[in-house]
Amino acid sequence: MATQKKILDNIRIVGIGSGNVATHIFRGLAIAGVDVVQVYSRNHRSAEQLASLCQAQPITQLSEIDTGADVYIIAIVDDAVKEFANQLITHLPDQALIAHTTGSIEMQVINSDVVRPQGVFYPLQTFDKMRDMDLYQIPILIEANDLDSGQLLATLARKISGSVHYIDSKKRQHIHLAAVSSCNFVNHLLSTAYKYLEDNDLDPHLLDPLMQETLKKFTDRYPADTQTGPAKRGDLGTIAKHESLLQSNAEMTELYQVITKQIRNRYS
Amino acid sequence: MATQKKILDNIRIVGIGSGNVATHIFRGLAIAGVDVVQVYSRNHRSAEQLASLCQAQPITQLSEIDTGADVYIIAIVDDAVKEFANQLITHLPDQALIAHTTGSIEMQVINSDVVRPQGVFYPLQTFDKMRDMDLYQIPILIEANDLDSGQLLATLARKISGSVHYIDSKKRQHIHLAAVSSCNFVNHLLSTAYKYLEDNDLDPHLLDPLMQETLKKFTDRYPADTQTGPAKRGDLGTIAKHESLLQSNAEMTELYQVITKQIRNRYS
Repeated sequence: MATQKKILDNIRIVGIGSGNVATHIFRGLAIAGVDVVQVYSRNHRSAEQLASLCQAQPITQLSEIDTGADVYIIAIVDDAVKEFANQLITHLPDQALIAHTTGSIEMQVINSDVVRPQGVFYPLQTFDKMRDMDLYQIPILIEANDLDSGQLLATLARKISGSVHYIDSKKRQHIHLAAVSSCNFVNHLLSTAYKYLEDNDLDPHLLDPLMQETLKKFTDRYPADTQTGPAKRGDLGTIAKHESLLQSNAEMTELYQVITKQIRNRYS
Repeated sequence: MATQKKILDNIRIVGIGSGNVATHIFRGLAIAGVDVVQVYSRNHRSAEQLASLCQAQPITQLSEIDTGADVYIIAIVDDAVKEFANQLITHLPDQALIAHTTGSIEMQVINSDVVRPQGVFYPLQTFDKMRDMDLYQIPILIEANDLDSGQLLATLARKISGSVHYIDSKKRQHIHLAAVSSCNFVNHLLSTAYKYLEDNDLDPHLLDPLMQETLKKFTDRYPADTQTGPAKRGDLGTIAKHESLLQSNAEMTELYQVITKQIRNRYS
């Protein structure tokens, strides 16, 4: 119990990676008082830059890794996580807890004969190291293969976020897919609508405040129904008028038709 | 010149309507120091409520209308604007300026043998009288059939908004279509993605911070390319995996396929 208490009060982590997620998470943890003992990156300059923000030691070789940290957080590109984790454990004691920050990869990334503590520390957000971010609003999804590791990761997450959740790998896969799809959908739809305005010699940023309010209204009110417009009303005259206005833009027309059809099906 | 100066300094308006647009615009103008002399609504209680917010006289009959105002702003449902405007002018002198707040209707709404001052005062936003709104960020699109009327409407708009634009009826039609479509698209896509999470026993509001950041990133950076994801990368393995995860949800699958196809076409 004494050991457990000590760990929860003064968690020592090693941060692996220096990209967008790594920068926001490791810096955020350091600001929250977590002891980031080292930052690892293959690129020396990147390791130094992020380490200096975290008051940590920069390292570029796994042979230099501090073997006494409580958690090793891997925040590198999705495709590289498994291979890296299996390389990392060869430098660490059996009981070292390894967690990754990836939404699309299952918790069990290590091929090992002994059961090793493993976990997930997935911040559900799109990060860009050049943009400020209020970490407190960001959901962090936790998973671990033993209770102590789960508690440790949750304690760590609560130091930077007000929205911490235990979610298993299967459910995390659904969230990740919904997240990636929604981002891509919204990006694509907006870029199509904005381009339509440019093509008509109009400043697309005229739409910015409307889009902000539309999203805010939707998220504030969901699951209340905020859908409006001609498709919901079954207003075929306006739909036909819109389609004729859009006819020079094939992508916008296709989106308009598919979404109109889905809305009409839902409300008919 | 003296008269013109007087008008621009101390504009007297009559507000017509008491719905979401009327409430935000008339109240906003009153707060900005514009003299809202009357608020008209067929419903007595609505007229009184909004009039009291504007320190105006509530009226429910056109026979009571103040014939000496500088502008009569019609903020009622789109379908009723034309008929109402033509009824309104029978109570007003020939030189009275009438403007409507509607994106989808042309400026010329009055059937008259004499040329009458007419205009548009279209705030590009989705309004809800129960929600607070920072009017200063909202674009107001102005149109008028003579220079003095255009100047008067622009002066009025600048009292509440930092984003005032002269836009003709044809261009306004394109903006209105892009606005309505984008609102409907975003609403529909998000409700589909959020419902997908609910169907998988997950709290859909986990996506809220991600959606806010996605939109903010897009609007901050457009026209820079913010598209990411498997479609852009041409990552067919991930696309197939996503489609199999989505197969129980026909709407989400259709959206995923159409948008994936469009993104692939754009980047191939």
